[in-house]
Amino acid sequence: MNEFGLIDRLRAAMPAPGPGLALGIGDDAAVFDLPTGQQLVACTDTLNTGIHFPDDTDPAAIGHKSLAVNLSDLAAMGADPAWALLNLSLPDTCPDWLDAFAAGFAALAGPSGITLAGGDTTRGALSVTVTALGFVPAGQALTRDGARPGDRVVVSGTLGDAALALSRLGSDAPPAAAQRDRLDRPTPRLELGRRLRGLATACIDISDGLAADLGHILAASAVGAHLDATRLPASTALASLPFAQRLSLQATGGDDYELCFTLPAAHAAELDALAADAGVALTDIGEITPGDALEWSGPGGQPVRLDTAAGYDHFGGGGT
Amino acid sequence: MNEFGLIDRLRAAMPAPGPGLALGIGDDAAVFDLPTGQQLVACTDTLNTGIHFPDDTDPAAIGHKSLAVNLSDLAAMGADPAWALLNLSLPDTCPDWLDAFAAGFAALAGPSGITLAGGDTTRGALSVTVTALGFVPAGQALTRDGARPGDRVVVSGTLGDAALALSRLGSDAPPAAAQRDRLDRPTPRLELGRRLRGLATACIDISDGLAADLGHILAASAVGAHLDATRLPASTALASLPFAQRLSLQATGGDDYELCFTLPAAHAAELDALAADAGVALTDIGEITPGDALEWSGPGGQPVRLDTAAGYDHFGGGGT
Repeated sequence: MNEFGLIDRLRAAMPAPGPGLALGIGDDAAVFDLPTGQQLVACTDTLNTGIHFPDDTDPAAIGHKSLAVNLSDLAAMGADPAWALLNLSLPDTCPDWLDAFAAGFAALAGPSGITLAGGDTTRGALSVTVTALGFVPAGQALTRDGARPGDRVVVSGTLGDAALALSRLGSDAPPAAAQRDRLDRPTPRLELGRRLRGLATACIDISDGLAADLGHILAASAVGAHLDATRLPASTALASLPFAQRLSLQATGGDDYELCFTLPAAHAAELDALAADAGVALTDIGEITPGDALEWSGPGGQPVRLDTAAGYDHFGGGGT
Repeated sequence: MNEFGLIDRLRAAMPAPGPGLALGIGDDAAVFDLPTGQQLVACTDTLNTGIHFPDDTDPAAIGHKSLAVNLSDLAAMGADPAWALLNLSLPDTCPDWLDAFAAGFAALAGPSGITLAGGDTTRGALSVTVTALGFVPAGQALTRDGARPGDRVVVSGTLGDAALALSRLGSDAPPAAAQRDRLDRPTPRLELGRRLRGLATACIDISDGLAADLGHILAASAVGAHLDATRLPASTALASLPFAQRLSLQATGGDDYELCFTLPAAHAAELDALAADAGVALTDIGEITPGDALEWSGPGGQPVRLDTAAGYDHFGGGGT
């Protein structure tokens, strides 16, 4: 199977293109019609075998995750997904691998409203780069620099399951399917991102760990935060762990792909309705403070010191 | 040096952003203002070490070429470059390597009018993916499907030097600097692409070899072509080779990154003026024919049969 066979196989697996695709796969470049009153939002992330996923990962999960991490970046900007480009480096051309990869990619692309419009396939160590393009109403992108003292700090879903799964891979106690799915098949919070336009003062997706990613908001906004570690939303598996272990996984483990955002306190009462509309749990975990420190309290309100606030640096987690 | 150090170093080396960049490097995604009356053009290409360039290639040349091959795709669409995203997988973080790479990238980005707006850095085998975004006046993109019988077939620059350099790497007769530069530092024909809007009936850039790339135009347009092999534009080095060797390099060697386009015969007289305006030689090498065959004639008008019309398939040459 040569390059063109590969491309045909990928294309055949994809859902029908969305509106606005003037020229798709099969020319020197793709051409798109542009909506009015919108800005273009673009992000890209590379996943390399052995770095971002174990060598034995299900190719359907690689297909899903390579798109999901980019959709998560669009979600964190409040953008609507539109177009994707896929760069696939493969050591060999195994049709079964490719079909499974394409199925995983397509199963997320369809409901997310994103169309594969082009890309590149080449020989090399297994590596997947997806570039996602989306649109946001002009001036409404969710950035990192708008958090203000008094804002509430909110996270979606639960934290730490992906890190728990990663810590157990290859161990005597391999991760349960639910944790492994959180690692391999993260859910981009697209609907939440859309609904945060005009509401959140800052937003980021949690790819490198809550402490590190919230840290980016704090640095960009020139503020600090006080978080209540006991309120970090946890799955049953996480909640059963000793507090220190649980906190380490939840605060510094990467790959959650939940959203962390700041919300003016005046809107705090709307959280439940927002969660219902967005279809994901939302948890108020603390408050933005003056200064520049990220402080934690634990059981009984006692101060807690994290082992590290560095998060996971596989130089690089979240690409722009 | 961690991911953020890498990104800061790349950013510092780049020219100032062009207009319309609402949010650049440093958030979850880049945000762009959109022009009216234009379509978005997007392409992406991956270059892997040992596949697309020799392991010992000057990092400045890798920086140049990774951008150039994408700008060449924009040129082939008649698009104006605007934004680039860069995914860089590196086995280690050597500041000298990175600085040289960034300098090579920046030296082409500046005069080409393209701004590095985001990307991703990660650990892995050396691999460079660039995604280029540009704009074209709505409806004026140069596609592959408009060639008609009677159109002239035209190529820019000279052909075969990159393939000659590649064939001589590691040999007892290493390539001369001029050939090596054609391999390592191709020149995207952006001004020519712009001037072909509304004039060329089809256009492609020659990344996989003239026969293969013109073949894409013929297939998309459902036409054939008759080319005069003696008219293929050649550098002095190529012109001195035996005819069969020269033809093989010129017709099936990849990496030229010249444009091949078709032009209604009524415009053939404008070629000299077009070449002067675009700043690159243009050579009429044959004619589009009915049918679907690519036929060649050689010295004295005798039919010539190419050893292969397949071109170079490193599954993948030209990404979309």
